[in-house]
Amino acid sequence: MTFKFNNVYVENTATVTNLYEANGPLKKYFDKKYDDLYCGEKSIEKAEVRMLKDSIQILLKKTSLGKDDIDLVLAGDLTNQITSSTYASSFMNTPFLGLYNACATSMEAVIIGSSLIDGKKINNCICSTSSHNMTSEKQFRNPTEYGGPKPRTATFTATGGASIMLTNKKSDVRVECATIGRIVDFAQTDPNHMGAVMAPAAADTLVTHLQDTKRSIDDYDLILTGDLGFFGKQILTDYLKSEYNIVLNKKNYNDCGVMLYDLKRQKEVLAGGSGPVCSALVNYSYIYDMLKNKKLKRVLLITTGALFSPTSVFQKENILSIAHAVSLEVI
Amino acid sequence: MTFKFNNVYVENTATVTNLYEANGPLKKYFDKKYDDLYCGEKSIEKAEVRMLKDSIQILLKKTSLGKDDIDLVLAGDLTNQITSSTYASSFMNTPFLGLYNACATSMEAVIIGSSLIDGKKINNCICSTSSHNMTSEKQFRNPTEYGGPKPRTATFTATGGASIMLTNKKSDVRVECATIGRIVDFAQTDPNHMGAVMAPAAADTLVTHLQDTKRSIDDYDLILTGDLGFFGKQILTDYLKSEYNIVLNKKNYNDCGVMLYDLKRQKEVLAGGSGPVCSALVNYSYIYDMLKNKKLKRVLLITTGALFSPTSVFQKENILSIAHAVSLEVI
Repeated sequence: MTFKFNNVYVENTATVTNLYEANGPLKKYFDKKYDDLYCGEKSIEKAEVRMLKDSIQILLKKTSLGKDDIDLVLAGDLTNQITSSTYASSFMNTPFLGLYNACATSMEAVIIGSSLIDGKKINNCICSTSSHNMTSEKQFRNPTEYGGPKPRTATFTATGGASIMLTNKKSDVRVECATIGRIVDFAQTDPNHMGAVMAPAAADTLVTHLQDTKRSIDDYDLILTGDLGFFGKQILTDYLKSEYNIVLNKKNYNDCGVMLYDLKRQKEVLAGGSGPVCSALVNYSYIYDMLKNKKLKRVLLITTGALFSPTSVFQKENILSIAHAVSLEVI
Repeated sequence: MTFKFNNVYVENTATVTNLYEANGPLKKYFDKKYDDLYCGEKSIEKAEVRMLKDSIQILLKKTSLGKDDIDLVLAGDLTNQITSSTYASSFMNTPFLGLYNACATSMEAVIIGSSLIDGKKINNCICSTSSHNMTSEKQFRNPTEYGGPKPRTATFTATGGASIMLTNKKSDVRVECATIGRIVDFAQTDPNHMGAVMAPAAADTLVTHLQDTKRSIDDYDLILTGDLGFFGKQILTDYLKSEYNIVLNKKNYNDCGVMLYDLKRQKEVLAGGSGPVCSALVNYSYIYDMLKNKKLKRVLLITTGALFSPTSVFQKENILSIAHAVSLEVI
């Protein structure tokens, strides 16, 4: 299911990060960096809310718009009942749609927002997401204090908040088309190997996208997956080559989870970054900068989400996955 | 933010319920009734998945459509990471958007789906939701075995799955317009009094809707709120009268949480039904039937959601709320 958009543009973006991300190779591209996982708040949950809210406020400041100028906020995150998004967005006092597609949520929001702008239902919107390493560890995994070792295939939830403003007013970068993904079940069950869980969804959405648009990967300067990490990136590359003869390489493909950190130096991130904000931090900072500076002309952002809960893992259900793709193009 | 729709119709609906709902006054309107909270499954989580999946399958059967004929599924529910929706929808193998606005999710889905049809992005979609009394009790409240008494203001999460198919093909009932709600903070903190939490959101969305459309409540045969329950219904009535001089009465207004059960006979439901499927069960069965039989000509469905998690309640955060409104009209 691929949508074409005629008049949808990126007005601007804002990214807020924390310790680990600000120590990574993309540090100079972020708008704000906290050096404390609590961000001066009393709880890690409030810290996540703070970073998401910061990203919206920075975005408003960058665009010289007030909250009354914004038609709609679309947001989602990993915390149970997406409370980070709702608490962070409430100050806006604007219509709100809450979304959840795990780490694919940022592009889910961009697709819905772009469709509403393209259909002339709204003039603009803000699409936001967040994650926090500690809120995710607390909620999805063992308490950090427990000190349980993780396998090398495990990913590291990124900490930050990120927002993008879409508009019908012409700008340098447009949202050109998008593909809504399907739920994929590849009988994966290991929450410590999300790359293996999500690579099939990324492949399914990319192949669908290329078929729907009658394009090849050469039509994109760069294809980015959300948070497959080191191993998932390799699995996707191998799978696309063997099943579809699509050749991903260093020049045309990268994964935000691998880009956000220096995997050799930052050993604690294991296979790389994950969490909904991981891809948003990379796409809305470095990638958006490259587009604005015309170093990239057209990119395909494929965000990848693992669909499960701690309960479903305890009950030995398969971990499902989904991926959504959005094409951004320089005008 | 109110959207007008020109060519969006209801193709059909399907509702699946369980013990308590099938013992209520609307029992004859449901498509399927389980008499066991496990629905023959091994866990209550699987039971909820089963009921949601059933509702999609019954809907396909009623419409004589195959899953390949469906462009998109939009779904959300209360379980952490909306796993009921994702596990239930995966068999469809169709593009999927996961949503979360608590008990306002059903109309959130209808608004996004209708916008995509109206904007000619898709031809049809299925919007689904579910809840299960026991999965909610397990996740949000004390274990049932604990036997903690609840105050009379507490509501009772409805058990079931419900789906609606929207289409661009003309039918008897159309989705005429819709209002996306804002996040409302009325400094409420009691999870055992959701009616008080959500009534302000229902009021905000109704008033916005009437202002945007330049209508009065007399333009609707019936206004329905989602799951305010006995006390929340009274709070909304009083509040609208005193603040806006809008007079809700027995003829023009009802609440799905009050309608789903017989509050006098079914004492266990306390102030009435809640959960995202509560309003969907009433709207997609009895109300849809009344519209098809032209006993109602135009109704406004306002679903109401409380935005919180167990963690946010433990941390003494305010419980936020949101409401989305959709106008259905007989042609």
